[in-house]
Amino acid sequence: MDIIVVMRSSATVDDEQFVIDRIAELGLTPHPSKGENRSIIGAIGDRSPQTQQQLEQLPGVDHVLVVTEPYKLASRSFHEADTILDIKGIRVGGPHVNIIAGPCAIESREVLFTVGRAVKDAGAAILRGGAFKPRTSPYSFRGMGKEGLELLKEAGDELDMPTITEVTDPRDVDVVYQYADIFQIGARNMQNFPLLLEVGKTDKPVFIKRGLAASITDLLMSAEYVLSQGNHRVILCERGIRTFSEEVRFTLDVSAVPVLQEKTHLPVFIDPSHAAGKRDFVPALALAGIAAGASGAIVEVHSCPERALCDGPQAVLPANFVDLMEKIRQIALIVGHRVTLWGRDDPHTTKPASGGWGT
Amino acid sequence: MDIIVVMRSSATVDDEQFVIDRIAELGLTPHPSKGENRSIIGAIGDRSPQTQQQLEQLPGVDHVLVVTEPYKLASRSFHEADTILDIKGIRVGGPHVNIIAGPCAIESREVLFTVGRAVKDAGAAILRGGAFKPRTSPYSFRGMGKEGLELLKEAGDELDMPTITEVTDPRDVDVVYQYADIFQIGARNMQNFPLLLEVGKTDKPVFIKRGLAASITDLLMSAEYVLSQGNHRVILCERGIRTFSEEVRFTLDVSAVPVLQEKTHLPVFIDPSHAAGKRDFVPALALAGIAAGASGAIVEVHSCPERALCDGPQAVLPANFVDLMEKIRQIALIVGHRVTLWGRDDPHTTKPASGGWGT
Amino acid sequence: MDIIVVMRSSATVDDEQFVIDRIAELGLTPHPSKGENRSIIGAIGDRSPQTQQQLEQLPGVDHVLVVTEPYKLASRSFHEADTILDIKGIRVGGPHVNIIAGPCAIESREVLFTVGRAVKDAGAAILRGGAFKPRTSPYSFRGMGKEGLELLKEAGDELDMPTITEVTDPRDVDVVYQYADIFQIGARNMQNFPLLLEVGKTDKPVFIKRGLAASITDLLMSAEYVLSQGNHRVILCERGIRTFSEEVRFTLDVSAVPVLQEKTHLPVFIDPSHAAGKRDFVPALALAGIAAGASGAIVEVHSCPERALCDGPQAVLPANFVDLMEKIRQIALIVGHRVTLWGRDDPHTTKPASGGWGT
Amino acid sequence: MDIIVVMRSSATVDDEQFVIDRIAELGLTPHPSKGENRSIIGAIGDRSPQTQQQLEQLPGVDHVLVVTEPYKLASRSFHEADTILDIKGIRVGGPHVNIIAGPCAIESREVLFTVGRAVKDAGAAILRGGAFKPRTSPYSFRGMGKEGLELLKEAGDELDMPTITEVTDPRDVDVVYQYADIFQIGARNMQNFPLLLEVGKTDKPVFIKRGLAASITDLLMSAEYVLSQGNHRVILCERGIRTFSEEVRFTLDVSAVPVLQEKTHLPVFIDPSHAAGKRDFVPALALAGIAAGASGAIVEVHSCPERALCDGPQAVLPANFVDLMEKIRQIALIVGHRVTLWGRDDPHTTKPASGGWGT
Repeated sequence: MDIIVVMRSSATVDDEQFVIDRIAELGLTPHPSKGENRSIIGAIGDRSPQTQQQLEQLPGVDHVLVVTEPYKLASRSFHEADTILDIKGIRVGGPHVNIIAGPCAIESREVLFTVGRAVKDAGAAILRGGAFKPRTSPYSFRGMGKEGLELLKEAGDELDMPTITEVTDPRDVDVVYQYADIFQIGARNMQNFPLLLEVGKTDKPVFIKRGLAASITDLLMSAEYVLSQGNHRVILCERGIRTFSEEVRFTLDVSAVPVLQEKTHLPVFIDPSHAAGKRDFVPALALAGIAAGASGAIVEVHSCPERALCDGPQAVLPANFVDLMEKIRQIALIVGHRVTLWGRDDPHTTKPASGGWGT
Repeated sequence: MDIIVVMRSSATVDDEQFVIDRIAELGLTPHPSKGENRSIIGAIGDRSPQTQQQLEQLPGVDHVLVVTEPYKLASRSFHEADTILDIKGIRVGGPHVNIIAGPCAIESREVLFTVGRAVKDAGAAILRGGAFKPRTSPYSFRGMGKEGLELLKEAGDELDMPTITEVTDPRDVDVVYQYADIFQIGARNMQNFPLLLEVGKTDKPVFIKRGLAASITDLLMSAEYVLSQGNHRVILCERGIRTFSEEVRFTLDVSAVPVLQEKTHLPVFIDPSHAAGKRDFVPALALAGIAAGASGAIVEVHSCPERALCDGPQAVLPANFVDLMEKIRQIALIVGHRVTLWGRDDPHTTKPASGGWGT
Repeated sequence: MDIIVVMRSSATVDDEQFVIDRIAELGLTPHPSKGENRSIIGAIGDRSPQTQQQLEQLPGVDHVLVVTEPYKLASRSFHEADTILDIKGIRVGGPHVNIIAGPCAIESREVLFTVGRAVKDAGAAILRGGAFKPRTSPYSFRGMGKEGLELLKEAGDELDMPTITEVTDPRDVDVVYQYADIFQIGARNMQNFPLLLEVGKTDKPVFIKRGLAASITDLLMSAEYVLSQGNHRVILCERGIRTFSEEVRFTLDVSAVPVLQEKTHLPVFIDPSHAAGKRDFVPALALAGIAAGASGAIVEVHSCPERALCDGPQAVLPANFVDLMEKIRQIALIVGHRVTLWGRDDPHTTKPASGGWGT
Repeated sequence: MDIIVVMRSSATVDDEQFVIDRIAELGLTPHPSKGENRSIIGAIGDRSPQTQQQLEQLPGVDHVLVVTEPYKLASRSFHEADTILDIKGIRVGGPHVNIIAGPCAIESREVLFTVGRAVKDAGAAILRGGAFKPRTSPYSFRGMGKEGLELLKEAGDELDMPTITEVTDPRDVDVVYQYADIFQIGARNMQNFPLLLEVGKTDKPVFIKRGLAASITDLLMSAEYVLSQGNHRVILCERGIRTFSEEVRFTLDVSAVPVLQEKTHLPVFIDPSHAAGKRDFVPALALAGIAAGASGAIVEVHSCPERALCDGPQAVLPANFVDLMEKIRQIALIVGHRVTLWGRDDPHTTKPASGGWGT
């Protein structure tokens, strides 16, 4: 029984029969029953997405309850075990905790390499850096584009770190594919469906950030867009939602971590930097996310943030990042997880998982 | 004075001097003053967008207040009079109230022409119909694509109505340009900046819906993206924001109408259909928006909504739309506006406004 | 069938049986059925409020759907016709539109009488004025207390208008009862249950404002508190909810008007003043609410708002209020309503409705 | 300079002079300056709370910025060091982490003592239990009242634990004072100002939960109500705010912990139980809050939650609470804090702090 139609108490016998007939016409099996003061009609079978909307308009219908979730491939009932991705030898997901770090935007070779070296030494596993920056203002710095991608690849190769960068335009998917190891879909593009379909056709991991006003179901449906194209390598990221709260840039919904882990097998990360909007609050949010069980965090680090062209106030200084990594490592252990410490002696990173849906 | 730097009460004289020097280095003129228990330093001049972020990180700084708004071309201080667009002889904006109506998605020639004829007869000025539908689920009907655009153009020609349709992919801008009169940017794409830049390069009007979690400033900055490319023909639309309220699909922020009208010269519409999510509530919201002073509304109408492939529950029936149009016409008059009644004797539609920014 | 228990797909036969037995133990009749990939168990009968919480914890249960609404006396299914109150000869509710107006706080005899005279002449039906002001800051003016109540009564008597004033403390219910005609429960006290119970024991109308974060159900449950004590004279008021929007003080949820009217028989008002927070936006919101079908509005008016001790910026000037009343009157007629014009020749006010639940 | 008045670009010289004169009339010193395209006028001095509202209405004024925060006694600039309370020998605040645990409502002697014993053995420092329960529905169990208080006192005495219980009515402050050690002000009463004033007149600690839609400033202003009456023993608690998110009962705003700690010296706790609404999510949220630096958590524990009369689904089972306490203890150490382990060998609890504002 996929759908439950709750009739109004004023519905007539004819209204009921009409609903029953329409359910049958839609290829579902109707199961009528009598409640205390109204009728309820179950509808069992494989519904098409518009079935709910079509039934809720019939005469005498009060509302329609959908029992089953709208996503399939992203659901834990489809794939019970945690998905563990293998990204250039690093295992991502489940108990493996990976920290992604680097500057917000790639501004210069010097800053990128300085920060990249610093975060790797501190234990970050993956290098981040934006080449195409979605900015609220058309007058802001919008990234170095292809030149930035070249620098990112060079840094990733030299530091031996996988790289992640944002893609905002379906026309850029090919060029980003050539230079980076992970596609980042930003919060503002979480429901950019042409973009999701395009990265879904590739074989590189897709890191999807939750939109500012996206429900958990919305986020999983966006993952479903990628999965439905055959790309099973999806990572989800809670990065703060928009609420009435004004003290931070966005409200980190830390409860999204356990909620998502209950519903999906995909790895769940958090982004404390964009949520905080201010570096003083980043460590508290990062530790909160790891304590809540996240499989990783993406943290902005900058060597000279007061001259950064983008989001400097939320960038952590390299020295503070060392301290943060150490605390992350300890908290991960307490909740039964383990941080991948790239470049150090860590057996977790040496046995690559098998491909496909992971283990 | 563009920016005001508020120092902490614990800031030292050296902190203050450092901020003053940095303001000068950024090309602004510093204006320090002493408050009751802390210093305030004004910074006058033409700031770059990152100036605020760079100053708020300096030692001793508590926070930074920005006095001037970040948008220029969209601002009423740039263009004081209401922008009145001329779209195929129809004047849009200011006191001219235009109703856009039609089915959510173009599903078939028959539905499109039936509904189109009905809404024109009732007084709608512009015909809507979706060919590329952004849908939360990858398994939902996503529109008829180019075939739908062809039908829309045919209907617009036959009914002698300008048409509007959504574009979701920068690669589709050319084809939509050929077939429709107005580009619609949906709420989920309000910050799809590559798409905004692409429609900004054309000369057709762009109808931008406010995102689910977009502030008024965010919406105006998205308009600025289009305006900054040279396309001055932008219409804004409040369509409901996401709040904790569960009874309607989205919460129509009717206060956005007067707020936007104070800040911008661009026409402001409302979308009662997506906000309500249920046809019974559409008339109340439509009338509320017109009473609040909106220059128009976009309303979904369907001749057989219980079989619609998209958003049927919120589509108004043609018979009810006739009644709604009549009430809209009367309320518009009370607030000093006037509805364009397409196809009827209406002097407002016969004198096209001049091009450019309108009058 | 009051409750539907949706089992997990992994639930065992024993889990199911346990739920069925527990439903029977709780005095309800279990109705199990088999869906596509999970079981659903209906539970028919008269549930106690904690039944849902108790069932959703049982092993194998995924979630519990409640089919029936939790309020009874406030529900339109309990009392189908609009409740029309008779307040000192004025009919309130349904098609009767009444405007409540006056200063935010009672500050002096002079301001109260000047404003009271002005709003009565403009057509307001009921006089407002705060004597006990809930203020965010303990250092703000908190009202004149009993002295203010005396002035309000005097003004109401002299102007021959019913009066409304806020009560914030259950210990003040008696004194407010003596001096005012309607109890106002402010947004911050919407869930002050001892206060609701106390006013519920009186026979004077209770005007309940929706809390900043209250759902429609929460608001109706607060009405239920009053109704359940035997006081059937309740008026509901939408006054703006807290959202991410920063341009206005609160976001007026105009859709609450038709939503509430569908669910309850009680009169629904709006408060454009507290939502707007700024007088320039008050008329647009007031007209929007009346156009959406509200049975009235409560508007703050002040003769010298820039010297008001409370909420001056949102007070409309008497001259503008005259214009606003005229537009309200016209819009009410368009939506089939009719404004009570106190002190003028208006047949609506001369035939008092019968007592009890109204007609 | 307390206030900054930003003029419109269209303001006249006369408008400016009028503002300057009014600032002087209000007893403040005006500091006018010329910006790029508008004037800014500072106002230095000791403003009354309504000054901002009065200035923002003057002709030519665009908006008014307030530089100083509206709370005083709650501010860290008033009292720089963390306030450490001594509650019956337990130190609360700063690095001292205390866990408050017990059943939601006191339902019976048996449950209270069973749960109390269990949480004490696991290391909880303070015993919770509700005798006056604010419930959304008038038909729900509303607590045992005075009989519940007696049981709570008995349990606290026998277990040698301080107790906390909610007070919802100013008329109950006396009786609660006699039986419990800490007053709890629930989220729905955070702005019940008569209640705050009443507990502010006592000398027992007041534990204030943040309202569902309360800003950080609102919460601190509620603390200010208590502090301004002479009671300096206030604890703040983040318990989840209302957002569009539907998967949990409320969205725990974990960023409120570091934000509050920056602004105030008062102890900051979190309530993972009411935020989660479901026991499976409680541990993740509790650990997140402690990792973010909270000085404690209040956790609902029940020995037989599926038969609880209130909020059973969010109650943790005693066995799981033992595990949670152990992880809390470890995470507290990592962030430089230390859990008070009541009844065990813990030097932190044996040296009571001095009275007043703590050390």
